Amino acid sequence: MKIFRSIKKQQQYSFKEKCKGRVIGFVPTMGFLHKGHLSLIDKAKELSNRVIVSIFVNPLQFAPNEDYREYPRDEKRDLKLLEEKGVDTVLIPELNEMYPNGFETYVEVSKLSKDYCGRSRPLFFRGVATIVLKLFNTVQPDLAVFGEKDYQQYIIIKRMSRDLNLPIFVIPSPIVREEDGLAMSSRNLYLTPSERKEAPVLYESMRRVKELASKGERNVKNLKKEMVKFIESKKYPRIDYIEFVDPENLKRAKILQGPTRILLAVWIGKARLIDNMEV
Amino acid sequence: MKIFRSIKKQQQYSFKEKCKGRVIGFVPTMGFLHKGHLSLIDKAKELSNRVIVSIFVNPLQFAPNEDYREYPRDEKRDLKLLEEKGVDTVLIPELNEMYPNGFETYVEVSKLSKDYCGRSRPLFFRGVATIVLKLFNTVQPDLAVFGEKDYQQYIIIKRMSRDLNLPIFVIPSPIVREEDGLAMSSRNLYLTPSERKEAPVLYESMRRVKELASKGERNVKNLKKEMVKFIESKKYPRIDYIEFVDPENLKRAKILQGPTRILLAVWIGKARLIDNMEV
Repeated sequence: MKIFRSIKKQQQYSFKEKCKGRVIGFVPTMGFLHKGHLSLIDKAKELSNRVIVSIFVNPLQFAPNEDYREYPRDEKRDLKLLEEKGVDTVLIPELNEMYPNGFETYVEVSKLSKDYCGRSRPLFFRGVATIVLKLFNTVQPDLAVFGEKDYQQYIIIKRMSRDLNLPIFVIPSPIVREEDGLAMSSRNLYLTPSERKEAPVLYESMRRVKELASKGERNVKNLKKEMVKFIESKKYPRIDYIEFVDPENLKRAKILQGPTRILLAVWIGKARLIDNMEV
Repeated sequence: MKIFRSIKKQQQYSFKEKCKGRVIGFVPTMGFLHKGHLSLIDKAKELSNRVIVSIFVNPLQFAPNEDYREYPRDEKRDLKLLEEKGVDTVLIPELNEMYPNGFETYVEVSKLSKDYCGRSRPLFFRGVATIVLKLFNTVQPDLAVFGEKDYQQYIIIKRMSRDLNLPIFVIPSPIVREEDGLAMSSRNLYLTPSERKEAPVLYESMRRVKELASKGERNVKNLKKEMVKFIESKKYPRIDYIEFVDPENLKRAKILQGPTRILLAVWIGKARLIDNMEV
């Protein structure tokens, strides 16, 4: 397994591999890998001949009051997992090569970034779009795999890729959950044992809506009310938002007709957890 | 000479050429070519094996009150000139492929875009950076040539390219002038004959400053005053701005020490003319 810490070396490697006709699949991560990440890598392996994974905790997507410093990191363990997975190349760029003095170029997917997670994290998606574009320019993949766990992010990256004429397929991969339904996330670490016990409430609330919908309830207002009641019956959770949206353009739905996606964000202790589900 | 109107076809062609080891030089234009453009093409030919020129009048860089509709166009004449120049490929993308429904991704080089031309044209450089990135992603050149006539634009594109890790050299090419000193520009067409006679005033005012500087005047305030007086002694010109800046980071200079660039924009009739010079 190759490890590149230089942008230029990664670019040269990717270019050579592509000219040899190899299809490059890319999985960008912030490291501290869990089964969710590994499933993205499986998807990339399925669709390409060379799998490149990046590890970079991107300061641009953290607000000053957020958890950039405490975000968990374990490069050694990550590299072991990636080696076992049969990944071809790991890109671990240096902070000062990614953000040199005078850095001031930002990519914005304007409307899609404003709502939902963009409300409580106003510069988050700008940070995500910018780093993903930078990583795309470095790795120059044919396809890139993003987890549906971060559903709004996936839609934003797909739109960015189309709008900027990037010759890259943006591929979604389904959410991986713990046995009790909690979506895998590095931030689950922040939960105390008693908070952790209540964390599946996000998943459960969406399952209940799905059941109500299958019994004929179509009114989003009513379904939301049910979710709020259920989540607020627990001790720890504080709802950030719950929305029912069109899965392509993220516009709000008022009644269930055609595919609809529930998006939600809930604070439990110091962890802000997000989840989503197609209904 | 190949003409591509499809983004995908241009990408496929560029990729193949690059894999064969050819160096691709790119000259983006808005068409209606003059000697200034042709000098950019000469520069590109000098440095590469394949020269690709794009023609696209980019609506994103015109404000609603600006001249998008009346901007001069003559594809037939342009193609003839490019053929004569020995250009390999011309990219003429379709408007609705460049800006499809739901287009909403923008690139911003934040600080460098705010001042100078950015003051009177607040979204101009966002429009320029976005289209240039899209064209870079389409043409995938090894190098791209930009005229120093649009000096702030050149600096912004260079910064964008570095910040986004594009593997593209951004190369400047000197201003081409009419015999009387007026910098070549498609917008010179907007001048009436009597306005045209006064238009060299931009160039002349900078030449005068250069002379004063060579005689020892170092104070920017004094030099600016001279320029204003000289330009305002004419009938038509209305000054938009005159600034003395560091040629790399565009920060304002108060005294001449080390390389300094004069940037200016002046309205003459309905033409907003820009020019610049190293002192």
